[in-house]
Amino acid sequence: MVPMQEVNPWGNELVDYERLFAEFGLQKIPKEIRERFKDSAGFRRGIVFAHRDLDKFLKTADNGKPVAVLSGIKPSSPFHLGSKLTAEEIIFFQKRLRAKAYYCIADLEAYADNGLSLRQSSETAVDNVADLLALGLDDRHAVVYKQSSNAAVLRLSHIFSKHTTLATLEALYGHQNLGLYTSVLTQAGDILYPMLGEEGAKAVLVPVGADQDPHLRFARDLANKLSAEYGFAPPAATYHRLFRALGGGTKMSKRDPANVISLSDSEEDVEKKVKAALTGGRDTAEEQRRKGGDIAKCVVYELMQFHFYEDDADLAKMRGDCTPGKILCGECKAVRLEKIREFLRAHQKKKKTMLAKAGKLVEGA
Amino acid sequence: MVPMQEVNPWGNELVDYERLFAEFGLQKIPKEIRERFKDSAGFRRGIVFAHRDLDKFLKTADNGKPVAVLSGIKPSSPFHLGSKLTAEEIIFFQKRLRAKAYYCIADLEAYADNGLSLRQSSETAVDNVADLLALGLDDRHAVVYKQSSNAAVLRLSHIFSKHTTLATLEALYGHQNLGLYTSVLTQAGDILYPMLGEEGAKAVLVPVGADQDPHLRFARDLANKLSAEYGFAPPAATYHRLFRALGGGTKMSKRDPANVISLSDSEEDVEKKVKAALTGGRDTAEEQRRKGGDIAKCVVYELMQFHFYEDDADLAKMRGDCTPGKILCGECKAVRLEKIREFLRAHQKKKKTMLAKAGKLVEGA
Repeated sequence: MVPMQEVNPWGNELVDYERLFAEFGLQKIPKEIRERFKDSAGFRRGIVFAHRDLDKFLKTADNGKPVAVLSGIKPSSPFHLGSKLTAEEIIFFQKRLRAKAYYCIADLEAYADNGLSLRQSSETAVDNVADLLALGLDDRHAVVYKQSSNAAVLRLSHIFSKHTTLATLEALYGHQNLGLYTSVLTQAGDILYPMLGEEGAKAVLVPVGADQDPHLRFARDLANKLSAEYGFAPPAATYHRLFRALGGGTKMSKRDPANVISLSDSEEDVEKKVKAALTGGRDTAEEQRRKGGDIAKCVVYELMQFHFYEDDADLAKMRGDCTPGKILCGECKAVRLEKIREFLRAHQKKKKTMLAKAGKLVEGA
Repeated sequence: MVPMQEVNPWGNELVDYERLFAEFGLQKIPKEIRERFKDSAGFRRGIVFAHRDLDKFLKTADNGKPVAVLSGIKPSSPFHLGSKLTAEEIIFFQKRLRAKAYYCIADLEAYADNGLSLRQSSETAVDNVADLLALGLDDRHAVVYKQSSNAAVLRLSHIFSKHTTLATLEALYGHQNLGLYTSVLTQAGDILYPMLGEEGAKAVLVPVGADQDPHLRFARDLANKLSAEYGFAPPAATYHRLFRALGGGTKMSKRDPANVISLSDSEEDVEKKVKAALTGGRDTAEEQRRKGGDIAKCVVYELMQFHFYEDDADLAKMRGDCTPGKILCGECKAVRLEKIREFLRAHQKKKKTMLAKAGKLVEGA
């Protein structure tokens, strides 16, 4: 068997999606669920392509029991498009199912992984949470917290260490340092924390990128081991496809800022990045007019599909212009760039009005 | 070099004290400090036999800067004589130097090491803290807390994990499971916690049994690594000799209750234990009258020396009766047993009056 750690949550690699189904037991999203959530572009376009126990989670929610949806951010850089995707997913379920949203500021992971002090993380977190609020999180039905201040989560991470062998961690994550292993235990604490207490969520859903599945497998295993003691049930998950880095090849990762669009980017930043982005263009204009663009290769198309076109008709038009060679990449990019800038302008304006509230949330977090 | 883990803080073995001086850099207690603290039987009788940086600690205290003294208990069983020894040491320094006393209820370690739930630990902790108060801890100048509820300590344990390799833990503690390694990180958090914040102690003293030195070496190493970031200084320590199990051989350990006197023992328990305790008696009464007892072997003598005779004259009389063969072991034990019972009767009476306060302290801990 191929070692599990080949799906590396800390790396930049793209994921072999078929292996996730075949070897790790992810389920495809059933038609009726895609239909039910077709107002979400993620579900409608197959960006959210797999799940674990989403059906059970929905049954619990539909039965009127308290449910939670959770995500988090490592406050090591501005909110980028990957964070936007999960944020939009939890906001969607918060609204649609009245799920309580949990948002973890993973400052201990930022310390372990990036060496950022908790104070530095706290500053970045205010900025990140303002983005989250601007994207639409309803903070009245949300719990925003810092790992470093949440005694219940930290306590869980210690409890979990008794039930975890170093061999398991090595199998799941490869040979890592103790700080990263501790981060993994804390993240499992984050995932199961909403189920604590009598008022706790009866089910938890974690929308993630496909590369984050090791964390889910680990948390689900712990939930099973400690179900009697703590009333845990295995957390459900949805998985979205990974967005490629602007230059193509690897996944978009904040470890490589030039290859990432962040929600704080200036007009100039975005222009530079979109102009440099990989497309499916041909070697010459003549060839492109003749053969058309290879849209499957085009990161700009993915940008619009994942993030900036809500209306499927806009995407269809983009394809219809590209593949028959009606439009060249430069001209196309100018149109998409304007759309992206429009989004960022509106978002950044809204975000400014959220900074004070974000500051209070992080301070009390 | 002999591997460091041969000094095992989780084992029952007695320690090769000379190795601690030669290989690990413990210092003997200087004459002037023994003189200064001669009203403490521990210092006067050489039970407290070594230290690290006690001189620096005293200088800080003498300069009027805030200092702390700390110990803790794994709430897995009643308070036994080993816990009494460290408790008396922190109470001594609390009174003598106006040091703030920190007392940690190591419930996460009890979970990792003994599988006790936090609720079980909490109940035992009330009993343990009542013993501590009855021994004389001034709770107005003390911080009593549970590991599982102290976010600052838990946070430190996560910070420390970034600065610790598995190889270091294995060198210090041998190959242990992840739960015990996590406990070690938490314990380092306990030790350095009093130094946190602007109001934090400028120096911390940890009185321990000689087998606990790996924890000190580990915490001192972390303090040095993180001195700039957190203002830590290496904690000072005093070391006491280990009390032998009643049957002799190993150290007295609560893992072996029949070999331990606990402060909750009934009159019958104590009688049984003292009667079964190892002495330096000879094979026959005739031989003992002729050769005298071998008091160096006698655990009952150690009991009186470590715990139950405050007056050195009483110890001298015991020796003077034993070594020339004036008294036989049965008769001697009857006299000591009465003294021990007297102590326990008074202690248990006082402890009863402390249970309510202990309950409140643990609840808020």
